[in-house]
Order: sequence, then C-alpha cells, then structure tokens
Amino acid sequence: MTDYSKQLGRLRPAPENFLSAEQIAQVQSGRRDFLRRAFVTASAAMAGGAAVTAHAAEATGKGSKLILDNPPWGTTLGRPVDEPPYGMPSKYEANLVRRISPGLAAVNQANVAFAPLQGMFGIITPSGLHFNRSHQGWYDIDPSEHRLMVMGEGDLVRNPKVYSVGDIMRMQPVSRIHFIECGANSAMEWANVAVPTVQYTHGMVSCSEFTGVPLLHLLQDCGANLDGVRFIMAEGADGSHENRTIPMSLVLSGEVLVAYGQNGEMLRPENGYPLRLVVPGCEGVSQIKYLRRIKLGTEPFGTKDEVLGYVDQMPNGKLRQYTSLMEVKSVITSPSGGQVLLDKGVYNVTGLAWSGRGRIKRVDVSFDGGVSWHHARIEGPVQNKALTRFNIPWVWNGQVAFMQSRAIDETGMVQPTYQQLRKVRGDFSVYHNNAIQTWQVQESGDVRNVQLAHS
Amino acid sequence: MTDYSKQLGRLRPAPENFLSAEQIAQVQSGRRDFLRRAFVTASAAMAGGAAVTAHAAEATGKGSKLILDNPPWGTTLGRPVDEPPYGMPSKYEANLVRRISPGLAAVNQANVAFAPLQGMFGIITPSGLHFNRSHQGWYDIDPSEHRLMVMGEGDLVRNPKVYSVGDIMRMQPVSRIHFIECGANSAMEWANVAVPTVQYTHGMVSCSEFTGVPLLHLLQDCGANLDGVRFIMAEGADGSHENRTIPMSLVLSGEVLVAYGQNGEMLRPENGYPLRLVVPGCEGVSQIKYLRRIKLGTEPFGTKDEVLGYVDQMPNGKLRQYTSLMEVKSVITSPSGGQVLLDKGVYNVTGLAWSGRGRIKRVDVSFDGGVSWHHARIEGPVQNKALTRFNIPWVWNGQVAFMQSRAIDETGMVQPTYQQLRKVRGDFSVYHNNAIQTWQVQESGDVRNVQLAHS
Repeated sequence: MTDYSKQLGRLRPAPENFLSAEQIAQVQSGRRDFLRRAFVTASAAMAGGAAVTAHAAEATGKGSKLILDNPPWGTTLGRPVDEPPYGMPSKYEANLVRRISPGLAAVNQANVAFAPLQGMFGIITPSGLHFNRSHQGWYDIDPSEHRLMVMGEGDLVRNPKVYSVGDIMRMQPVSRIHFIECGANSAMEWANVAVPTVQYTHGMVSCSEFTGVPLLHLLQDCGANLDGVRFIMAEGADGSHENRTIPMSLVLSGEVLVAYGQNGEMLRPENGYPLRLVVPGCEGVSQIKYLRRIKLGTEPFGTKDEVLGYVDQMPNGKLRQYTSLMEVKSVITSPSGGQVLLDKGVYNVTGLAWSGRGRIKRVDVSFDGGVSWHHARIEGPVQNKALTRFNIPWVWNGQVAFMQSRAIDETGMVQPTYQQLRKVRGDFSVYHNNAIQTWQVQESGDVRNVQLAHS
Repeated sequence: MTDYSKQLGRLRPAPENFLSAEQIAQVQSGRRDFLRRAFVTASAAMAGGAAVTAHAAEATGKGSKLILDNPPWGTTLGRPVDEPPYGMPSKYEANLVRRISPGLAAVNQANVAFAPLQGMFGIITPSGLHFNRSHQGWYDIDPSEHRLMVMGEGDLVRNPKVYSVGDIMRMQPVSRIHFIECGANSAMEWANVAVPTVQYTHGMVSCSEFTGVPLLHLLQDCGANLDGVRFIMAEGADGSHENRTIPMSLVLSGEVLVAYGQNGEMLRPENGYPLRLVVPGCEGVSQIKYLRRIKLGTEPFGTKDEVLGYVDQMPNGKLRQYTSLMEVKSVITSPSGGQVLLDKGVYNVTGLAWSGRGRIKRVDVSFDGGVSWHHARIEGPVQNKALTRFNIPWVWNGQVAFMQSRAIDETGMVQPTYQQLRKVRGDFSVYHNNAIQTWQVQESGDVRNVQLAHS
C-alpha cells in the first residue's frame, strides 16, 4: 500500500468538473492560467480559515495542538428525510454531468452525451450519468402501450407472440452486471484529434446491473426452431428504427437479455425504457433500446446500421462488417486529460478495464510510455463482460511522464498499442478503437492527451 | 426454468406504486374494491385498443394474424441526448419513491424514508431510493469545509491529524458492495403491528458499491498503537452528533471504510456526503454519516446511542448493549403486502437476503407457512455482506397460501422463525428483528402481512 508518510500529491479536476460554461469557454480558447491561480488562492484561504472559528475538539501531537471546528451544520436542524422522495446528488457535484461535444452531430437528438469517467468510482455507473447515444432522440414511452413481437422467417417460429411489458416482467428474471460501450467510443483518436478529457475520449462506456429475461426463454416460449435459426434481428420502437443482426450463438448462450431493470429500478428513458436488448460484450448499437421486435432468420439481415454505418474501413479499402464484439480495452480515468498535478508526491492512479470476451485478468500500468510496466490492483470480484476498476499508487517526481494502461482478458487477449492496431486496421476506421491511451504529464503538471510514435 | 406454456399470473403492484395520495388514503380507509375494478377496466381497454390503430408489422401463427402497431414515438423526433445532463427515471415511475410513515417521529428530520423494495430489482439500490434514516435531518455539507480528525486517548495516537476530503481522496481506495440496514428495520413487527407493505416492513435496508479508504490506513498514517487500541469511537458532524463505539477487531480486518463514493459518484447528501463510515455487516447507526472524528480507546465509549437507544430489552428486563451485528435475514419483496394476484397461474417470487456475518449460502422459500421448503435460485456472484437477490417460480392455484423465505449464511447461521426469536429475545425489543416474514395470499388474491402462531 501507499507510504502515507510521503507527501500526497494534490490533483486539480478536469475543467468541466468545477467550472462554469463561460470559464470552460475561456479554457478552450487557451486562457488557462487563471485557473491555477484561482485554485491556489482558494486553497490558501480555506486553510487559513479553519483556525479562527469556534472549535469543538482538540488533539495534541508532536507538541502542536490540532483544532477541529464545530461547523454551522453541527448546531442546526437539517432537512426532512422525505425531501426529496427521489434523492439527488449534492449541489457541490453539479458539474459532474454528462456532456455533449456540440459540433459532433447536426442535431442533439443524434448526438452523444458522454459519461464523466474522470470523476467516477468503482464499476457501477449511476444511471443518471450513463452515456447516452441516440440516432433520433430519446423517448419516455408509456410502458402500458409498449409491445414486443417475436416472429421468424418461414416456419422458424411455430407460435409468434406479442408480449406486453407486464408479460415479460412476470417471467423468471436474472440480474447481471455488464458494460455497454458504443462502437464509436474513442473514435476521434483514430485521427489523433486528441480531444482533451477522458469524458470525451472514453465516455461512451458505462456499466449497470441489468435485470431481465434471457431472450432464449422467449424464443422457447414461441416454439422457435432453435436448430434452424442462425441469426436474429432486433428492432427498436423509436423513430430511428434501429435494427441489428445478432448471431444466434450469443442468444443460445443465455447471455442475451430482454432487460427492464437497470441498477435496481426500471431502465431510464434514454437507455431504452421500458425494454432494451442487452447483448453482453457487443457494441452499444446492437443493444437495441425500446425493443419492439425480434425476428429469427438464417442469414444476416444487412440492416442500415450494419451496412451504411458501424463498419470498419480496412487498409485495402474494403469494409469490415458485423464486427460487434468489443475487444479488451482500458483507460486511466484519473489523473487524465485536463487535470493538473499541483505537487510532486504520491498519486492514486485509477482507471477502468473491460473486455467483450469475458473477465479482465490483469491490468498493467506504465509511467514511461510503455517501456516498463507495473501490475495494478484490481477491485474484485471481477465480473463477466463488466467494467473492472484498477488502482495503483505512483510518485510523481515533477518530470514529464507518459501514463498508459494495458488490459489483458481471461482469453489471453492483450490491449494493443496504436502502432499494433494501425498495422492491422489502418488509419480510416471510426469504430472499434481499443488501443492503449497515453496521458502525458507535463512538467507544469498539466495532463494532456497524446499519441506516441512508438506506441 | 418456468414452463411458459402455463398461464403467467398478473400482479397488481402495491398501492403506493401507482396511486395518487388521495387514492392511497382511500385504500387506507378500507375502500379498496374500486382499485381492482379500475385495474381490470384499464387492462381491457388497452388490449382492445391495439387492433384499431395503424400497424407496421405482422406475423402469422397457428392460423391467426398478429399485428404490431407503429406507435407515435416510431415516427417522431425524440428529445436531445443532453437533456437532462443528469438523468432521471421515467415519469411513469414517479410513484416508486422513498416514503415516510407520517406518525413515526415528532418531526420529519428525525423520521425515516423507507426504500420501495417491492418495485426494485437486483442488488444495487439506486442512490435516489436508498433509505434515509436521520436523527436531526440531513445536510448538504460543503466538502471543502469538511474535516476528519483522527485522535486517541492517552498516547494511543502518536501523530493525530486533521484530514480534508481531498486528503482522503488522494489515498489508495477500495470499492466494495455492501448493504446498510438500520437496526430498527422491521421493528414494528415485534409488536405484530403488521404494517401493510414491504416498503415499511423491510425498507430500511439498501445496498451500494462504496468507494473509500480502509480506516486502518488512516490509523497507520497517524502512528496509532494498533496493539493497544481495543475500541474506536466514530462521530458525525451533523446536529445529532451521532457517535458510536466500534470494536477495533473490525477495523483491523480492513473492512471498515472511510467512504466518499457510492454507486460510482460521490455519496448522496442524505447518506453522509462528503464522508461516511462504512462498517460492513453492522447496523446503520454505526455507519456514521458526515464523519468528522475517530477517537481510539481501550474501553467502549458508552455514547448516547448505545445507552439510551439501540439497545435490546431482553425477557429478564435487562438491556442488551453493543449489539451492532445484523444477523442473517431475508424477505420476499414481490409478491408482497398490498399487492394483488389477479389470476391463478405462474408467478415469479423474488426477494432479498443478507447477513452481517458474510455471504449468503442458500435461500429457502415456503408457500405453506414453513411446512415445506424449496431452494430459490440465487443471482451471483454473491458478495460479502451485501444484498443477495433470489428468485423462484410458483404456481398459485387460487387458494390461501403463506409465503416465507429463510436465508442461511456461509457461517451456518439460519434465519429464525418469530417463535424461535421470541423465545430468546422476548417481546419488548425494537431492534435486530431478523425473523422470517410471512405474507398471506388470500383467496381474493390480496397479499397481507401476517404472523403465524407456529412460525
């Protein structure tokens, strides 16, 4: 564990965690110096303030007297327990929210709201911060009006059915923790755009405890010819009519869920309320929100979002299709881009790792751009196809450093460097970037998003 | 698994899940019949409505044609992805909230807001629904003003310190899923008050992924004489100045955390933001919110809330003190009190089990008041000192039934019947009721809270 006798470094959060919209605009336009001054001044004022107020507890050690204030909230009545009936975060956390990159889509109904990974802990994404990618906006659908049809080509389904949400919720459920990652997560990094913070580089991944019914059970209920089906098509009820081909092998494994529960309550509207498909390990677009139809077939369905989009352009100019699996990946979430190391000293380096193939086995961390690697501590129990939290202490000596994390999954897959990934995939992809992320710590303490020539 | 060819029963949720305040008042005054009529009418109208609107998908099976509507939200633009920046539940879930029992305390700052277990899934409690028990109301404390002092009697602590929240957050953290249960959970049942729903019988338990620093590391950082300390006292900064004695053995195990994270984000204000003690397996009052002081000592501290309150009156009139451990317990959360089984048929019976001693090993469910028992399915991986979800299918034949669940933990402790518990503890306790709960299903389908003479 950390030697706490050493100085612990102080970290300034990324701008969007504590600045107003106007201040962020100043940062984006390059006027960043005022931030450091403002922060240092505030810290000094705070430290000085403690000694002059009334105190309620004292301790003596090493010849000096410590004083603990009796704060205003120690002598007053707080707020009633039933206000509000549905609780909300502290007002002091108001800047830790999902954020869009305004220019990324023509309308914000087809944009993405990124999750603020830089300020998050553990593996569960609070549903209010789950990333939100949409093609046509989100809906709050009346669950009593929603239906799910299960049908098939030819005679693949003996007894097609239309289910209500209540029908699904009366069946035997399972609850499992899984990540969902958009296939386009880290897409800007293919072009080395170097977006400034981890919220924008990796914030299209989140992790929830989902509750629902294995799709396999619905197919059995409809008398499907399970031996004859090779692919299914899942379709959403929303205006974008998302539909996607999913291999039947995934359904037969029992892992694919028709989910209604997320983190203990019903799905959030922007995450597909009242029903969504959960296809553990596959890209987000396959995990159809507002699920309204399952069609069974024998060939891939060639839907718009596996022909016109969500394909990978390879070096030879051909398009790679049906690449739904999300490969092993990780990222250091703190310290990360936009944050500032204010002192030399010990820092907790923390991040997330995940793999669409199963459990994370190991995470290595480097501070010298991949020359030497150290095993990070993993918070267990490690879940199947779920985010996995890692931590490792690091002493920053005030010099330039290049922080990287590299995940290895239980199948032996190793997260690649950009050099390795580009060798196979070229430079023209948008989707499925699982390369090792590099954060440069500058001498000033500023953390920047960079790509190294050799890694 | 369930045989889905059998009729699946329809369940009407507990009144507070779908009724207005006025309607709930009508229910409480005994006028319940209108509910069933209203529900059946609404269902019929809904089923009839589907056939007359435009349709977009058809399927033919067994000679009949199925039609899937193209709903209004299938042809329109939804809402932008960045509205709201911090997401909220569907408007259709507005009744699934924490609720108080108005007469339970003189002021609602000293009341409890119960978690709506009857409508929850899995094991994670969404932070907005975490139960909220307070003695003096809750506060939204400015984290930059909050301090934590670690000190000791005599020379037990060589180098006492005052930590800021930032100091704590710079240390090496851990993330773990644990339940918190108020010692007074199910208290009304000692007197067989038979409060109507599981929200009120068992809604003072919740479960979160907590992130924080083992308290042990802070004590090491302060140069504590770990061999000399036998007890610690933890104190809150709020107006009630909660303080409690905790055995040093729990701290030495590394399980006791100074936590700042809850379900991926900072603690919620009503759950102790910015710092709370997490003492896995112990009653809620020991898990001090707004943690401001840790004092090390050699004897129990005899604080007000372990002398005047949170003691158990035994049959011989003596008061049992320092009974912080929460013993093995479980409850069926659905079907549960206030819900109504509307048909004969197959129901999913689901519930939660937990133990302050470790992991849940098995949950048995009975439908005949404890005469015969069936193993429930447990959703894994089972976590240490955490809520554990169980499910089991059941065919209701329309006759009176008595549903019970009985949990067994990895140490071999078995949840007792009321008869067994009262034999040891008598009838005058308030705290630490872990007896087996009985829900009676009446011939009408109404589910009621009862206690059986023999169990």
